Amino acid sequence: MPNRARRSACLTAAALAALASASMPGLAQGVDRPLHKAVIQVSDNDPQKWNLALNNAGNVQSDLGGPEATELEIVVYGPGIAMLKSDSPVAKRVADALRAGVKVVACENTMRAQKLTHPDMLPDIGYVSSGVVELMKRQQQGYAYLRP
Amino acid sequence: MPNRARRSACLTAAALAALASASMPGLAQGVDRPLHKAVIQVSDNDPQKWNLALNNAGNVQSDLGGPEATELEIVVYGPGIAMLKSDSPVAKRVADALRAGVKVVACENTMRAQKLTHPDMLPDIGYVSSGVVELMKRQQQGYAYLRP
Amino acid sequence: MPNRARRSACLTAAALAALASASMPGLAQGVDRPLHKAVIQVSDNDPQKWNLALNNAGNVQSDLGGPEATELEIVVYGPGIAMLKSDSPVAKRVADALRAGVKVVACENTMRAQKLTHPDMLPDIGYVSSGVVELMKRQQQGYAYLRP
Repeated sequence: MPNRARRSACLTAAALAALASASMPGLAQGVDRPLHKAVIQVSDNDPQKWNLALNNAGNVQSDLGGPEATELEIVVYGPGIAMLKSDSPVAKRVADALRAGVKVVACENTMRAQKLTHPDMLPDIGYVSSGVVELMKRQQQGYAYLRP
Repeated sequence: MPNRARRSACLTAAALAALASASMPGLAQGVDRPLHKAVIQVSDNDPQKWNLALNNAGNVQSDLGGPEATELEIVVYGPGIAMLKSDSPVAKRVADALRAGVKVVACENTMRAQKLTHPDMLPDIGYVSSGVVELMKRQQQGYAYLRP
Repeated sequence: MPNRARRSACLTAAALAALASASMPGLAQGVDRPLHKAVIQVSDNDPQKWNLALNNAGNVQSDLGGPEATELEIVVYGPGIAMLKSDSPVAKRVADALRAGVKVVACENTMRAQKLTHPDMLPDIGYVSSGVVELMKRQQQGYAYLRP
């Protein structure tokens, strides 16, 4: 096989791998990397929905092989933001989810509109500048979208 | 063309076809296979939402060429599970949807939590161990997500 | 490199580019084309949800670089259709969104069911024969799905 042909074949294989990795997240990753990704939206001011979102995250982890096999992010914004305030009725469950490796993030656009600052919120959560943009980005990265 | 180069080209073509098939469901399928796929979530205890979900399935089928051109699955879980109990107010409409080729599945995680067993449910529906995992898997398979 | 091998390599590169373009919308587009696409569903008869959908569209535009960098479409159907009637309480905000380059479309299936015709609706909006089919098509085109 001539050298240039061999080089072309190699480049092609590399391009395919890159493409597979970009368009099918998880496929080209090692077996020890998360394969099941979902972003869970919380935008209702409704504790039943908050519990459902937390149940969903727990069920996904237990059904799909635990934190090692899943990448879950709960994005909280709009009227849902009270889920993550210090006095949240689901504070303990949020802490449990964080400990189980679920990412939980609050929308800073919403916080600004409601005059909330980081000290008003639950400990150990994450922050994103825009909840809705985060939902878009995660879907573009291959996360499934779930809205309980 | 040397044999090894030819073999590389063939492998590359096969890999491309596999990749196209995996990342763009429907594209590499025959013309007689479903091309429009959607998973419809029902998780509210609200008969208006149940009717909307059933309307949506019907509209998709009539607008996109019937059951032959569509693959629709209604996934029922959480507070929505009453839609599929034997005494459901939309029992007749669920039977119609099933006859029209729409898949309707109940979440067994939810059923266990509500002490429901298969005999408590409508006939001919399907079952999945986790509704939320089913929604993730279908999206990964290229199904659009609809939450009425 | 023999000619046939060279041709194979070229075809492979072209196929890869086509595949990349098809499976990752935006990637192969020029820098002046929209890169962030989302379809926003409005199907609730709830002015708070209408305002949230309009807020979401505005936030996405301001966070992602304005109308030049985003392609947003609000799809209104089912019980949500009142958002786009002439007497809508959010008429002014819908006009603002349209002026900002957000597409806003009403479902004609819903309009027919509610005996609404185009003169009953807000000016300058668009129409689709089926809101739910539009949501499916947009997701198949790589739009993220948002349901406030």
